[in-house]
Amino acid sequence: MKKLLIIGIGAGNPEYVTIQAVNALNEVDVFFVMDKGTAKEKLIALRKEIIERYVKDRDYRIVEATNPERRLAESDYVRTVEDLNRDKQQVFERLIGEELKDGECGAFLVWGDPSLYDSTMRIVAAIAQSGRHAFEYDVIPGISSVQALAAKHRVALNAIGRPLQITNGRTLAEGFPENVDSVVVMLDAQNAYKQVAGEDLDMYWGAYVGTPDEILIAGKLHDVMDEIERTRADARQRHGWIMDTYMLKRRGGSASEEG
Amino acid sequence: MKKLLIIGIGAGNPEYVTIQAVNALNEVDVFFVMDKGTAKEKLIALRKEIIERYVKDRDYRIVEATNPERRLAESDYVRTVEDLNRDKQQVFERLIGEELKDGECGAFLVWGDPSLYDSTMRIVAAIAQSGRHAFEYDVIPGISSVQALAAKHRVALNAIGRPLQITNGRTLAEGFPENVDSVVVMLDAQNAYKQVAGEDLDMYWGAYVGTPDEILIAGKLHDVMDEIERTRADARQRHGWIMDTYMLKRRGGSASEEG
Ligand SMILES: C[S@@+](CC[C@H](N)C(=O)[O-])C[C@H]1O[C@@H](n2cnc3c(N)ncnc32)[C@H](O)[C@@H]1O
Ligand SMILES: C[S@@+](CC[C@H](N)C(=O)[O-])C[C@H]1O[C@@H](n2cnc3c(N)ncnc32)[C@H](O)[C@@H]1O
Repeated sequence: MKKLLIIGIGAGNPEYVTIQAVNALNEVDVFFVMDKGTAKEKLIALRKEIIERYVKDRDYRIVEATNPERRLAESDYVRTVEDLNRDKQQVFERLIGEELKDGECGAFLVWGDPSLYDSTMRIVAAIAQSGRHAFEYDVIPGISSVQALAAKHRVALNAIGRPLQITNGRTLAEGFPENVDSVVVMLDAQNAYKQVAGEDLDMYWGAYVGTPDEILIAGKLHDVMDEIERTRADARQRHGWIMDTYMLKRRGGSASEEG
Repeated sequence: MKKLLIIGIGAGNPEYVTIQAVNALNEVDVFFVMDKGTAKEKLIALRKEIIERYVKDRDYRIVEATNPERRLAESDYVRTVEDLNRDKQQVFERLIGEELKDGECGAFLVWGDPSLYDSTMRIVAAIAQSGRHAFEYDVIPGISSVQALAAKHRVALNAIGRPLQITNGRTLAEGFPENVDSVVVMLDAQNAYKQVAGEDLDMYWGAYVGTPDEILIAGKLHDVMDEIERTRADARQRHGWIMDTYMLKRRGGSASEEG
């Protein structure tokens, strides 16, 4: 039998790694390291740093695989991701079939938490269901960028007794969701917060949260949105890539915001 | 100057603690341990276990404070929590004023992640804003019960490119939110999932997740809801208290659920 671990490594700071993840890292024979796009080198380097820092007295192999790339067309985002995941599944199947021996443990290190906007669990479940490979697998949670953002701004995600929505830029651009006071936005390539600038909101923004390049800005949406747009553009140019997340909270009035 | 740390300790498994939290625990002079209700002893014991396990060669004090208690009236939940938080703020101010010396570091250990359905950050921010006590403070994220649940069921929180809502039982009872495929429900004392049994949903339920008492049940809402209701009632009776969380996901049709 082969074993696979899907390990959440936290979203930026190597100290976000949990004790459970450290113990899991020390069971691994083969690390599958995959990344794509311009952030590639930085993110691969952070995974290797985590492996070197936390794995003690144990032999392991690192297998780097090139992630299939496709342009994420705005027009049919879900379809494109699904196609991408089918390509990825083939890569994963080859890794499990050819790079992992019986009795060995392989691992995928997932940025942040594996349950949030990440396809690794879906792909591994599809492979398990196909029956083409015999393996067992486990998932280890990690600190997501959402939690890192909230901790750095020292602000709760939800108002008392009220729901929280976690969404992406494309969906926010359709409007601030109803019946919700707090929205966290990930994967926003288009400054979607500007589409809801008519609402009375506070914005808590963070880029590269938990890393030495971290930038944080907070304030009334209307007051900070231009500064955030400029800062994003600058940072993206300087680094060649950006990862940023923000929270929007309804302001004033509502008693539930105070407490 | 005094220093305060709000440390997320994860939602059940002592190994959910992060390296950042372990390092923070080793800076603390005074741990403020507070809990309420029937779960009191169990949860205090887990905090002490974490302190003993991770703090090395350092003298520290543990100060136990009784949390003010109020009946959470369904009718005015937000108001009751706000009153409760004002009472708690007085307790916290006394702790900071009387139990923490200048130059010392005090800590509140928060169950799960401090940003999710927890008042500690709000209360400490209110004290800081009052100007009555001079201190600086930091927040350290922790693995929430939401992530622990997803990892144990090995299921992603959101469908590809789709939003996720995190809510409580009272709000779910008003109906499954629109424009959302995935909902995570916490703080449900009333089996609110039965109110949405007319929808075509998968349910992923977990109680005491990450602890030795963990129970997991998953399936089509309609098929598993009675079993979950019975299991909840049994567990609550056997343990004297329960903490459980569940995810509801729209089934079938939507391409975004497959991928
Ligand atoms: C494909 S999603 C993966 C999310 C990841 N699984 C998590 O738990 O954070 C990538 C998005 O996460 C957010 N993100 C990840 N790491 C971040 C960080 N350190 N700072 C700010 N945002 C981050 C950005 O919104 C980015 O577009
Ligand atoms: C006041 S909220 C605190 C949530 C916490 N801050 C977190 O991050 O999980 C308490 C609720 O969290 C959920 N919960 C906390 N720990 C849990 C566990 N180990 N298993 C299942 N649910 C849990 C339950 O829904 C419970 O009613």
